[in-house]
Amino acid sequence: MSKIGFIGLGVMGTPMAQHLLQGGHTIFAHSRSGVPQALQDAGMQACANGTEVARRSEIVILMLPDTPDVERVLFGEHGVAAGLSRGATVVDMSSISPIATREFAHKVEALGADYVDAPVSGGEVGARAATLSIMAGGRQQAFDRVLPLLQLMGKNITRVGKAGDGQVAKVANQVIVALTIEAVSEALVLAARAGADPARVREALMGGFASSRILEVHGERMLQRKFDPGFRIALHQKDLELALSTARALGVGLPSTASCQQLFNVCVGMGGAGWDHAALVRAIEHLSSFSLDDAHAG
Amino acid sequence: MSKIGFIGLGVMGTPMAQHLLQGGHTIFAHSRSGVPQALQDAGMQACANGTEVARRSEIVILMLPDTPDVERVLFGEHGVAAGLSRGATVVDMSSISPIATREFAHKVEALGADYVDAPVSGGEVGARAATLSIMAGGRQQAFDRVLPLLQLMGKNITRVGKAGDGQVAKVANQVIVALTIEAVSEALVLAARAGADPARVREALMGGFASSRILEVHGERMLQRKFDPGFRIALHQKDLELALSTARALGVGLPSTASCQQLFNVCVGMGGAGWDHAALVRAIEHLSSFSLDDAHAG
Repeated sequence: MSKIGFIGLGVMGTPMAQHLLQGGHTIFAHSRSGVPQALQDAGMQACANGTEVARRSEIVILMLPDTPDVERVLFGEHGVAAGLSRGATVVDMSSISPIATREFAHKVEALGADYVDAPVSGGEVGARAATLSIMAGGRQQAFDRVLPLLQLMGKNITRVGKAGDGQVAKVANQVIVALTIEAVSEALVLAARAGADPARVREALMGGFASSRILEVHGERMLQRKFDPGFRIALHQKDLELALSTARALGVGLPSTASCQQLFNVCVGMGGAGWDHAALVRAIEHLSSFSLDDAHAG
Repeated sequence: MSKIGFIGLGVMGTPMAQHLLQGGHTIFAHSRSGVPQALQDAGMQACANGTEVARRSEIVILMLPDTPDVERVLFGEHGVAAGLSRGATVVDMSSISPIATREFAHKVEALGADYVDAPVSGGEVGARAATLSIMAGGRQQAFDRVLPLLQLMGKNITRVGKAGDGQVAKVANQVIVALTIEAVSEALVLAARAGADPARVREALMGGFASSRILEVHGERMLQRKFDPGFRIALHQKDLELALSTARALGVGLPSTASCQQLFNVCVGMGGAGWDHAALVRAIEHLSSFSLDDAHAG
């Protein structure tokens, strides 16, 4: 059993850290808002800051909101870097900038430690059920070392490539998910406004080349008007922002990712920051002064 | 066995009519360029025009390039309408405007005949193998009457709703297919340009919420650089034009469909009208001055 550091006890981090604790590991935890008493009662060791976490751990896991948080926790005052021993491993499971991740990995490796980026998908439900999908980047040896820990938190665990490539895969995943939601939204709104029953159109399209998990799951949510998250629009906006800032830095043109972000913005303007991302359909409905609810069956 | 009219013996229509002939039906055929001698030798009856086809047939099937062709063949000089008997059925298997289809259906029904729109997907390969997917609209009785014929030409045959709803479903299908191709293109180009191996990113994403038939089939074509059709970009442009003109007529806003059409235009500018639609990725590569071929494995 290993000494594991865990920094970031939010809605995702808390159940993930609990799975590690239940797996028999010793957990040295830190969170900006403190380590909840219930977790300490369960055996989690509270640390004052990242440096203390790193001093006491062989592997330090981060689960933080965004790029600046990871940078601060790693390299800021009382940060992880200051306490990291040679041969330790940093595992960043946050979803952050791929480009910044490559820099962070270089700096951590320069200290004689390893860096694995391992962002997840599957949300709170996946975190609680330990069924997260995990896309990892980092040296093979480092990945192999942390894999038993990742297996306590997730199910589909893939090493995509070197450090940073896990974040790249996560961003690619979020681009495809968002744009496929928009594809289904545009198609169903057009179909309904043109007088067809969108539910029957969706059924006719399943099994053909238009078929996807999104048509299946999110298409159903659009028709049932079930927009409780799921995955919040505000979080998907953050992920598309990572895609767009990466694209800007690299001179890549992503016309539909850019326009899809505008539609998420429209949803937020409608009060929908907390809606499930399938509610992107409401932006298309709003643009079109028409709702799938108005559809008449054929 | 029925007397079937068939108008339009192109790359799709020819094998479709042959399947009907092999099914034991009598085929009265007309095509602007004449009925090939080989088909006449096989037993197909050549007719001088649409009126003659309609006079001799109980069911008249159309397989034509676009909306104006269907309008001319139905209602133009020596058209089908002039020869249609009460109780006959027109089956339009072309992919044309849903709005025009509703008008054509009204006019045909006013003559005491039935109208079924039954556009297909599956391309030349599906037409030859009699495995086309068929999305139909029309009265249930009329659909039931023509179903045995559709079953000689296709596999997944769905009645979506009333006349025109088949065309609506086809347009919706083509919107989703095009936009999902763009989703995969933007994601893979971004991933590769950001230094990850796009093949491994694609693999990591399969099975999750980003998974789709397009990621599976067209994603593979993008990586293998196999852009032989398949389905030609010029044809997909025509289908998105149907979506965009329908949207314009109805006041529906389809931002990504509109921008996706621009990318198909870019491909045509690159000489790619005849490329498979998966080559949309080349427009994103072109925009980004980068090719997936340049990707380095992690």
